[in-house]
Amino acid sequence: MSLNTFKSDPLTPCQFTSVGPLKGSKKVYVSSKTRPDIQVPFREIELSDTVDDKGNHTPNKPIRLYDTSGPYTDTSTIIDISKGLAPLRLKWILERGVQFKRGPVVTQMHYAKRGIITPEMEFVAIRENCTPEFVRDEIARGRAIIPANINHPEIEPMIIGRNFLVKINSNIGNSALGSSIPEEVEKMIWSIRWGGDTVMDLSTGSNIKETREAILRNCPVPIGTVPIYQALEKAGGVIEDLTWDIFKSTLIEQAEQGVDYFTIHAGVLLGFAPLIAARKTGIVSRGGAILAKWCKAHKEENFLYTHFEDICEIMKAYDICFSLGDGLRPGSIEDANDQAQFAELKTLGELTKIAWKHEVQVMIEGPGHVPLNKVKENMDKQIIMCHEAPFYTLGPLVTDVGAGYDHITSAIGAAMIGWMGTAMLCYVTPKEHLGLPNKKDVKDGIIAHKIAAHAADLAKGHPGAQAWDDAISKARYEFRWRDQFHLSIDPQTAQEFHDEALPEEGSQLSHFCSMCGPNFCSMKIAQDAKK
Amino acid sequence: MSLNTFKSDPLTPCQFTSVGPLKGSKKVYVSSKTRPDIQVPFREIELSDTVDDKGNHTPNKPIRLYDTSGPYTDTSTIIDISKGLAPLRLKWILERGVQFKRGPVVTQMHYAKRGIITPEMEFVAIRENCTPEFVRDEIARGRAIIPANINHPEIEPMIIGRNFLVKINSNIGNSALGSSIPEEVEKMIWSIRWGGDTVMDLSTGSNIKETREAILRNCPVPIGTVPIYQALEKAGGVIEDLTWDIFKSTLIEQAEQGVDYFTIHAGVLLGFAPLIAARKTGIVSRGGAILAKWCKAHKEENFLYTHFEDICEIMKAYDICFSLGDGLRPGSIEDANDQAQFAELKTLGELTKIAWKHEVQVMIEGPGHVPLNKVKENMDKQIIMCHEAPFYTLGPLVTDVGAGYDHITSAIGAAMIGWMGTAMLCYVTPKEHLGLPNKKDVKDGIIAHKIAAHAADLAKGHPGAQAWDDAISKARYEFRWRDQFHLSIDPQTAQEFHDEALPEEGSQLSHFCSMCGPNFCSMKIAQDAKK
Repeated sequence: MSLNTFKSDPLTPCQFTSVGPLKGSKKVYVSSKTRPDIQVPFREIELSDTVDDKGNHTPNKPIRLYDTSGPYTDTSTIIDISKGLAPLRLKWILERGVQFKRGPVVTQMHYAKRGIITPEMEFVAIRENCTPEFVRDEIARGRAIIPANINHPEIEPMIIGRNFLVKINSNIGNSALGSSIPEEVEKMIWSIRWGGDTVMDLSTGSNIKETREAILRNCPVPIGTVPIYQALEKAGGVIEDLTWDIFKSTLIEQAEQGVDYFTIHAGVLLGFAPLIAARKTGIVSRGGAILAKWCKAHKEENFLYTHFEDICEIMKAYDICFSLGDGLRPGSIEDANDQAQFAELKTLGELTKIAWKHEVQVMIEGPGHVPLNKVKENMDKQIIMCHEAPFYTLGPLVTDVGAGYDHITSAIGAAMIGWMGTAMLCYVTPKEHLGLPNKKDVKDGIIAHKIAAHAADLAKGHPGAQAWDDAISKARYEFRWRDQFHLSIDPQTAQEFHDEALPEEGSQLSHFCSMCGPNFCSMKIAQDAKK
Repeated sequence: MSLNTFKSDPLTPCQFTSVGPLKGSKKVYVSSKTRPDIQVPFREIELSDTVDDKGNHTPNKPIRLYDTSGPYTDTSTIIDISKGLAPLRLKWILERGVQFKRGPVVTQMHYAKRGIITPEMEFVAIRENCTPEFVRDEIARGRAIIPANINHPEIEPMIIGRNFLVKINSNIGNSALGSSIPEEVEKMIWSIRWGGDTVMDLSTGSNIKETREAILRNCPVPIGTVPIYQALEKAGGVIEDLTWDIFKSTLIEQAEQGVDYFTIHAGVLLGFAPLIAARKTGIVSRGGAILAKWCKAHKEENFLYTHFEDICEIMKAYDICFSLGDGLRPGSIEDANDQAQFAELKTLGELTKIAWKHEVQVMIEGPGHVPLNKVKENMDKQIIMCHEAPFYTLGPLVTDVGAGYDHITSAIGAAMIGWMGTAMLCYVTPKEHLGLPNKKDVKDGIIAHKIAAHAADLAKGHPGAQAWDDAISKARYEFRWRDQFHLSIDPQTAQEFHDEALPEEGSQLSHFCSMCGPNFCSMKIAQDAKK
């Protein structure tokens, strides 16, 4: 394990890090009944009483929400970014080594297939309000994954699968023109504060390894990477000079650090070149473009494809999940659902079977730019071709013209495909197609996709999702303004927007807001009529 | 006609009005081949050439987009808000009086049913790129409407129907706590600049009539109102004191001014009280709440229902469209698709038949808060129960927890229901549930719903919609940055976002952006590989 490789030098605690609970929330933990060392975090929102006309009070039960934010919102935790988080899972991992003899396969799928419920599965079951057996069975059949590298003991385990809450991923990472290590750690903390379930470190600039180490040691959610980026840096930026050996050493380096899932673009095959040439916007995946160029230069098959079983060997020794990359995702509405895209998807399905043979967990990356009428075909084909492995989609963006607002074009498609069965939504920020996102962009992207994920959960009939909506609607109807703010997806913004027009403290008790004024509030009128 | 009732006193030209074309656009007009006085505006975006490796130039055709912004974006027009816009339709309306003898029915439906193609229909046909006969036939069968009061000659005619481009409405209006007349006119100009196809004036505060007059005389798009608001002001704010006579005089006052469509909550019936009582959040429509309270206080049937044919008599004499109000739209996910909602919808369908008997044009207002899995039922039932009259929905918002971001929760539902056949989407701003929107909120709400409408158009296979996406994707692929900005839904924001990280003029010619940097741009790599 690589807990001590972190250099504190560049990382004095960021003064701009947001810590402490969200407005109106506190961190609570639910213990496992069988193992007290399984402590599952939730964000609890206390609600005020309902008061009727006669002044009688009826209490409202607090609401507990799924909480991605880790120890950063726990007031009892002392945060020291130079030291990293406590290794929550360390004991569980070591126990497995003792119980089962550390072998070449340490994946959650491996244990699940043998009927074993790991502490990670039990943690997830409490988090998702289901039985550990259900978690185990979904993992055993490949329909869900728990990304949890044995070298990333800091994570609070989470699950990605269509029979669980829909998750979202946010991306961070410097580019050659970009940001510093502390800024990237800050972005990670910021991302999980607003609801990022996993974080991908897409750094391509200098200090890739150090940036990743700082992020991993401070990150309570799974981290994904695209190892070909670092491999290319090692090859001096010359795509033709990439080799399997460079790539392999990169994989091992990142595996040792604790990366939880790897995007591997093994489905971009030499034979797909004519399908790509027929497109309007070619290849818009960075990894896909790199591999396509390599294949063409060498007139050889993609080395990620030819070495796929070698990759499985590495990943199963750390329990790293595949995120089989969609190097040929469409980059425009015109290219959506074309031959290139589905040829690659079919290949990813074949590779899924190989990974499962090695008991490596798999999810499948999906598009991209897709018009609303073609979204369902993506989901249906993915389920069939990829044997129900979880789908992890970028958007999809439902139009190409939304530059500056692509968090919205993406949230529209994401809500729809999430409802249809996508397990995780990759966020898109307002800066997509235009530049590197800043802190505000990251938050805007996360909130938009958190809304999409929650809308999908509601549509799928998730009981916990419905309870949240019911609570805020009741608060709204009863003019419990403060409760309404606290139950909003972003409590601070909700209150600020309200207070902009009616700033006085007392107005939060009013039976109206500035939208309609005191005489035209529909709810006030309707309730007066009721009396 | 009431062209001269406007007082210029409170309305010195707003210094903060945005006029002039959007970045990279110019106004062009397409003339009718039969009548040169029909001049249909479009926003034209000129594109730069495609330049290949050898420096050969291939020109790209300019793109013409639907343009809601009226003369305000035409550099050749002199804007004087105190004088109002030129009465574009005056001649057409007078012609009809001469040709057909001004009778009690002057509606577009009346002419359409007699096989007559009005100049308004021809204008719309050019705007929508279809035949005037198709426009006429859709209006004759009630599947589309052209809201165009004979006393609002300033409008550039537009059509609302599911076989045309999906439209959006934005709301303006002061509340008791709200804004001034010049501010409201400015909001209208601002709304249509960003794509509002119609504008509803929901003012409830003082100066209702003067505000509306100022807006109408300066507004090139149809204006809708909810007359019960002003009627209530006339009744001293006391709901119980509302009478048919007060309401009737209000209707006539607004009809004379030129309002193009009225929201009439005639479907909130006395007998629905038990269905409303069973709800979680009761009534959330202002008009609906007022009528329900009136019914309850008087133990009488809704006077808008009992006087419905009297209302038709007024509306057909001015060609005002019904927007049959959904006073019982659900205000929470829990109440979606409930008995109260569908009982009202059935009533609205019955009223549609009565309105059509009078040859009055009709659209039907729809929800509200609806989870994704219940959206389709709304559309399907509306088409059947309301005999294909156009559907005009508020959102729907797909979750209740989005306060502060409800433009996004709404855009998600709106895109979906627009694709399924809704003809017009009512915008929702980020301030929904919290307060009165400001200028930025209005723009954010419009852009989000413009994206939803366009996504629906694309999914419905509209050729013009696809051409826009194809143009921006080609520009993106060819690194024609300036063209990409100009083709974006909000050119200014797209460019500002790009320039934030790479501000130099030269960078707009670069083959990368700050998102991935020069070495990791997928499109650059893929194109280098192609060479």
